[in-house]
Amino acid sequence: MPISGFPEWLPSQRMIEQYTLDKIRSTFELYGFAPLETRAVEPLDTLLSKGETSKEVYLLRRLQEDSGAASSGSSDDQLGLHFDLTVPFARFVTENHGKLQFPFRRYQIQKVWRGERPQEGRYREFLQADIDVINRDTLPFHFDTEMPLVIGDAFRSLPIPAATIQVNNRKVCEGFYRGLGLADTAQVLRTVDKLDKIGPDKVAAALVETAGATDAQAAACLRLAEISASDGSFVDRVRALGVDDPLLDEGLSELLQVVETAAEHSPGLVRAELKIARGLDYYTGTVYETQLQGYERFGSICSGGRYENLASVGNTRFPGVGISIGVSRMLGLLFGQNALTVSRSVPTCVVVALPSEDKRTDCERIATALRRRGIPTEVAPSAAKFGKQIQFADRRGIPYVWFPGDPDTVKDIRTGDQLEADPATWTPPTADLHPSITGA
Amino acid sequence: MPISGFPEWLPSQRMIEQYTLDKIRSTFELYGFAPLETRAVEPLDTLLSKGETSKEVYLLRRLQEDSGAASSGSSDDQLGLHFDLTVPFARFVTENHGKLQFPFRRYQIQKVWRGERPQEGRYREFLQADIDVINRDTLPFHFDTEMPLVIGDAFRSLPIPAATIQVNNRKVCEGFYRGLGLADTAQVLRTVDKLDKIGPDKVAAALVETAGATDAQAAACLRLAEISASDGSFVDRVRALGVDDPLLDEGLSELLQVVETAAEHSPGLVRAELKIARGLDYYTGTVYETQLQGYERFGSICSGGRYENLASVGNTRFPGVGISIGVSRMLGLLFGQNALTVSRSVPTCVVVALPSEDKRTDCERIATALRRRGIPTEVAPSAAKFGKQIQFADRRGIPYVWFPGDPDTVKDIRTGDQLEADPATWTPPTADLHPSITGA
Repeated sequence: MPISGFPEWLPSQRMIEQYTLDKIRSTFELYGFAPLETRAVEPLDTLLSKGETSKEVYLLRRLQEDSGAASSGSSDDQLGLHFDLTVPFARFVTENHGKLQFPFRRYQIQKVWRGERPQEGRYREFLQADIDVINRDTLPFHFDTEMPLVIGDAFRSLPIPAATIQVNNRKVCEGFYRGLGLADTAQVLRTVDKLDKIGPDKVAAALVETAGATDAQAAACLRLAEISASDGSFVDRVRALGVDDPLLDEGLSELLQVVETAAEHSPGLVRAELKIARGLDYYTGTVYETQLQGYERFGSICSGGRYENLASVGNTRFPGVGISIGVSRMLGLLFGQNALTVSRSVPTCVVVALPSEDKRTDCERIATALRRRGIPTEVAPSAAKFGKQIQFADRRGIPYVWFPGDPDTVKDIRTGDQLEADPATWTPPTADLHPSITGA
Repeated sequence: MPISGFPEWLPSQRMIEQYTLDKIRSTFELYGFAPLETRAVEPLDTLLSKGETSKEVYLLRRLQEDSGAASSGSSDDQLGLHFDLTVPFARFVTENHGKLQFPFRRYQIQKVWRGERPQEGRYREFLQADIDVINRDTLPFHFDTEMPLVIGDAFRSLPIPAATIQVNNRKVCEGFYRGLGLADTAQVLRTVDKLDKIGPDKVAAALVETAGATDAQAAACLRLAEISASDGSFVDRVRALGVDDPLLDEGLSELLQVVETAAEHSPGLVRAELKIARGLDYYTGTVYETQLQGYERFGSICSGGRYENLASVGNTRFPGVGISIGVSRMLGLLFGQNALTVSRSVPTCVVVALPSEDKRTDCERIATALRRRGIPTEVAPSAAKFGKQIQFADRRGIPYVWFPGDPDTVKDIRTGDQLEADPATWTPPTADLHPSITGA
């Protein structure tokens, strides 16, 4: 039985996922990110120390374990499944900092688990593809400007709708709120973060009620959140609101660098969107969210930000910046709209027809010759009539059937063309060698 | 803190693992196996229905779940992490048989979890790479002969010691025991399976005690288990023991096909080894184990077999045959002997030196030009002295440093050679483009 929130793709969908992961990974490697995997489990203490995620954690217990042990043990005895890849990565860095070269750039593509209520594109088990850079002591800001470029390149390598990366900087918001005279900037941020969910009127009322804002202060916070621009013009629009604060200046300067670097590298990719806040507590500067054109209502499919204080060893801090592609989320939404198709349901390019069962060894020899030259090949499973063997290939979308003979021939079953061929030299057109993935 | 049994590789080791997985996967695809991933969790009922594995299962519980629910609920409410990929695959096939084309060939490369006592090469979380073929009603025997060929090709594509696949057939053993007059063939099989652990004398004694064997019957079982051959000569040696049984005949004929097919395709790869039994209950015919030369004492790193009765829907059975590479196990053992090395610890091929921070945009443009032609490139993290920037590359094993100028030059820091270069056309030697993996 299917289990709600634990999606399973059919093989043709998994082929699309695999293709997507290959493209993402090769983009990450072009930027020099090294691969990493961390264990699926973390001590509960580690999981609970960052962000407001306690309700989402899955705990583990061995079936034969003394059943009292799990509940009576202290929480650092308990293991839970990781709910993201940033917290495990920060833990890995503090544990292995003596063996790593800094700045340390890594990518990590793994399943994560959250006990959330499942909905479209929201799963309890899902695949994330993360990049992060962590340095010792301080991390130069230019790494914040690099993240959107990597993601932009990765998305452009895929047959998916155009992506827009929305960027903000918490220093802009916090500096602005502080400059306005609001002391509890974290509470203001959390409230403004609900804008898309509850609308501006309720946000204004909540700012007055829970963050001690006057109506004018609340209105100013909303005007800041309205600002959105694909170029540096947002700076003047913020300035026009008449708030002054050194943290605001720093934030504007940083945000401007992100927007201008992206505009040079990938025009149209990045927008400054001053309502973006990200729910997680650990971000301290730049924050990213990403929407696919036509899928905006489903929210962000790629998010992240700068974190100054996630990892430390004694007095040494390891600040970082990272971004995470929600691969299952993105593909789940695209699959839901039939927006991605694959040309066949198996990797096989050629089926070697089997004239009779006693010829299997000869047919295997042909298959071996083709495989040695990188051509995915199967021998027909049984010596059925050739019509049935062609049907075997056709049903799977396999383009070629090879007929052993004197001479051998190979038939393109899409066109019916049949030509003499030698297994030591015949090569299919490059476009046919592997399944091709296309967008809607 | 490290958690016993949950290994984490450093990035250079992960690069070796990733390379290994790429080679394995591309071999699987050359044989037409389609990719599949199943969810990490299964209902406890599914996990417990196959084999003697109950003690190894990890159960899941949400942190915020009513703590009574997990213990008071029926076992089909409970979810556990899968301990292999065969049981989930069989479940997937029964659930989706209407959407699949049979015979269905799939590969599956995923983590699995077992709450076993950790030891060298034995983990609680580990990576497996499986292939299986499942058909409706009956599965032709030739698929049993194909499994070792795929594994042999996969292993030969890796810089690891030579592998020997040891093959047996439970029909040989069961037919032989039955022909000897021993009724409880399963008990005999389980006892003989302990041969390597407890030795022939204790096995003989146990056969007499627990399986009702006479001393002569026990001795005959041991003589069968001693038979080992890389060609068809094992058939005559079994016949010479003077036991006659139709199931024995069937098993010998099947085993002979596996050995002879492999001898034609990959001389030296496969041995008939009549003591191999495999602990899991669900195998019904061919069984495989695999040893790496020099690592025999650590046991099998790739195992599997034929299963007739793992999956069924109503009256329809879905028999299968499969084999599973224990990737973490194999790499853990090889890492333990420093038997695999990688030429650098990052994917990066070129570092673009940064003359001053205000030249970063120019340097990024060079990097972009190189990346667009598939050359993994980083810009130096800071405008340190060139000596330090070269050191940055050297410490990571990155072979080239690019110096922007008029003209640009690129330096091979291993040889000191420095040449004029254009980012639109310069290409490193193919051997330098990606990190290379070598064996001991």
